[in-house]
Amino acid sequence: MADSETGGTSISELGKFGLIDHLTKKVVPFNKTTVTGIGDDASVIDPGGSMTLVSTDLLLEGIHFNLVYTPLKHLGYKSVLRAISDIYAMNGNPGQVLISLGISSRFTVEQIDEIYEGIYLACEKYNVDLVGGDTTSSLTGLTIGVTAVGTVNKEDIIKRDGAHPNDLICVTGDYGASFMGLQLLERERKLFEKEKVTQPDLAGYEYIIGKQLKPEFPVSTLAELQKACIKPSSMIDVSDGLASDLMHICKLSDTGCRIFYSKIPIDYETSKLAEEFNIDPIVPALNGGEDYELLFTVPLDMLEKIESIESIKIIGHMTSSGTGYFLVGDDGSEVTLSAQGWGKKK
Amino acid sequence: MADSETGGTSISELGKFGLIDHLTKKVVPFNKTTVTGIGDDASVIDPGGSMTLVSTDLLLEGIHFNLVYTPLKHLGYKSVLRAISDIYAMNGNPGQVLISLGISSRFTVEQIDEIYEGIYLACEKYNVDLVGGDTTSSLTGLTIGVTAVGTVNKEDIIKRDGAHPNDLICVTGDYGASFMGLQLLERERKLFEKEKVTQPDLAGYEYIIGKQLKPEFPVSTLAELQKACIKPSSMIDVSDGLASDLMHICKLSDTGCRIFYSKIPIDYETSKLAEEFNIDPIVPALNGGEDYELLFTVPLDMLEKIESIESIKIIGHMTSSGTGYFLVGDDGSEVTLSAQGWGKKK
Repeated sequence: MADSETGGTSISELGKFGLIDHLTKKVVPFNKTTVTGIGDDASVIDPGGSMTLVSTDLLLEGIHFNLVYTPLKHLGYKSVLRAISDIYAMNGNPGQVLISLGISSRFTVEQIDEIYEGIYLACEKYNVDLVGGDTTSSLTGLTIGVTAVGTVNKEDIIKRDGAHPNDLICVTGDYGASFMGLQLLERERKLFEKEKVTQPDLAGYEYIIGKQLKPEFPVSTLAELQKACIKPSSMIDVSDGLASDLMHICKLSDTGCRIFYSKIPIDYETSKLAEEFNIDPIVPALNGGEDYELLFTVPLDMLEKIESIESIKIIGHMTSSGTGYFLVGDDGSEVTLSAQGWGKKK
Repeated sequence: MADSETGGTSISELGKFGLIDHLTKKVVPFNKTTVTGIGDDASVIDPGGSMTLVSTDLLLEGIHFNLVYTPLKHLGYKSVLRAISDIYAMNGNPGQVLISLGISSRFTVEQIDEIYEGIYLACEKYNVDLVGGDTTSSLTGLTIGVTAVGTVNKEDIIKRDGAHPNDLICVTGDYGASFMGLQLLERERKLFEKEKVTQPDLAGYEYIIGKQLKPEFPVSTLAELQKACIKPSSMIDVSDGLASDLMHICKLSDTGCRIFYSKIPIDYETSKLAEEFNIDPIVPALNGGEDYELLFTVPLDMLEKIESIESIKIIGHMTSSGTGYFLVGDDGSEVTLSAQGWGKKK
C-alpha cells in the first residue's frame, strides 16, 4: 500500500521491527572493537584494554535543522559527524554510533531510507559502525538522537582543562561559514514562502552551503599532530562557536586568552555574504557555531613544529588566570569575548 | 526574573551552559569505571579489561509519557531505569548514563530540576553515574534521550540468540500491570478533560499505577542466579511486551515456544481493572509492555535450581525451530502468539 500523498511506502506497512530490519540489514561492521551490533538489548564493544569514550547529541526539527532545505541524506550524515567529532576532540578513535529516530507518520519508508543512506555514508567515510539505537513514532517533528562510542589510550586523552598561560591557541579550517550558509538558506526559504520565488539563488556560495549541510571533520590534522609528536595541552571541537568553545577551555583550564582579529580564518564566501547582510564577518566567525573544526592549545615551544603543519593556524595565546578573554584588533584595541546564550544556536 | 505564569525561574535566565552547570553541580561519581564525567567533549569510562555495553532510548512527550499524570520526578527516574534495564538484560553492570533533554520554553528551571531529581534518585538506587548528555531547546514537547553504558566480562554476556528447544522459559514479576495502570490514568485524564472531574479515582490500584509511573528492575534476581551458578541461555528485558519480547528470543535463537495461560503471573489489581474494562487480563499481560521484568531461558536440567528461587516463575518451554509460538490454555487449546505493531506502544 503506497502512501496516498507522496506515493511512498507508509511506515505502518512495515511495522516497528520490520522498519528496523529494513534499515539495518546492510550493516557489516568495520571495526574490530565491535563485538555485537544491532539486534540485542545493548551493543557490545571491546575496547581492548583502552578507555571507552561516549558522547551523545540530540537534534530536533525546527531547532537544529529545517527540512525545507536540508536533504535527509545530508541530515543523516551530519548527525553522525556531530557525534563522532566529540570523540575526536578527546583525541579518541570513534568506533560506533547508535541512532535513535522519532518519526512522525508523515514520513515514508523511502524518506527514512534517505536518512540512513547519509548515516551509512558517514559511517563508511569515518570507519564507524552503526551498532544500535531506538526507533519510535513521534507526534511532532523528526527527532534524532546520536550516541558515539570510541576508544582512547589513557595517556593519549586530551581534555579541556590542560591549557596553560602562554600556550598557543591553534585552529583548523575557517569559521562562520556554516552559520552564513544557514543564513543564506534561510533567506531563500523566506523568499520562497513569501514571494513564491522557486529558484533559490545560491550561486557563488557553494562552499558555505556545503559547510552547513555536509560538514567534514579535520581528521588528517589529528594524524599530522601525532606524526609530529605534538600532544595538545587541551582540545575541543568547535560546535557551539569559536568564542564560546575557547572560553570553555579557558574556564576549565583557569586561564585567560587573547586572540587576534586578523588571525581568525574566514573564507571569502563567508566575508562576501556577511557584507551583503551588513554584518562584520568576525561575528559569525566567533559566534556562528557548527564549524566542526578543531580548537586546541600547545606549549609555546611547539611554535616551529606547529607552523610546519599547513592545516593549522595560530590565532592567539593563553594568558594568566583572571586576565579576561580578549579579541585584539589590528590597532591593538581589545574587545571582551562573550559566549552566546540559550536558544541562539541553530 | 520569575516566569509570569508559573512563578518559576525561566530557563533563558540561566542560559544553556548555566542550566547545565545548575543541573549537574551535585554530581559525584559512584563508580570506579567513571574516569571523566560531565564537562568535556565525551565521557571517559574505564571498563578495566571488560567489554563495554551501550544502549540508547528515546522518550517523546505524547508517545511515551503524558505530563498530565506523569510527575516529572518519576519521568526522570523511569528514563534512567528504561536505559539501564537493557544493560542488565545483557547480564552487565550499568555504570553510567548520559541524558539528553529537548526542552520547550514552557518549562521552568524548577520543573527541569524535578526531572533531574528523579534521574539522580535512580542513579543512586542503581549505583550509576550521570556522565554527560546534551541540553537543547525544543519547539514542541519534552524530548528525553537516555544512553546507558555498562561493563560485562566477555564470558558472562547473555544474548537473545542462545536459547535451545526444551529450555525452560522463566520470568520475574508480573505482567500487564504497567499497561493497566496507564489505562486507568488515561481514563481519569479523559474524565477530567470532558467532565471536569478533578479528583481522580485511583484507590485500590496503587500497585499498577506504581508499576506504570515508577517501575523498578529485578536486580536481586540477577544476583540470585549468579549465586546459584545459573547462567541463562538467553535473556531480554520485557519492555515491548511479554509476547513480543519472547518472540525476539525465539527468532534470534531459531526456536518455537509454548507458554501456558495459567502460568503467566498477573497481579490481582491488573485482573480486577481488566475486568472493569471488559478485557481478558491475558491481553495486557502478553502485549502491554513496559513491565521492566526479566525474561530468560535456562536448560531443562536447571529445573530444580530455578524452582528454589522464589522470584522466578516458569511459564513454558522452548520448542524446535518452525513449530510456532503458542499460548496453551487450561484445556490444552493452543493460540498463536502475535507481536504488537508499530505505534501501539505507549
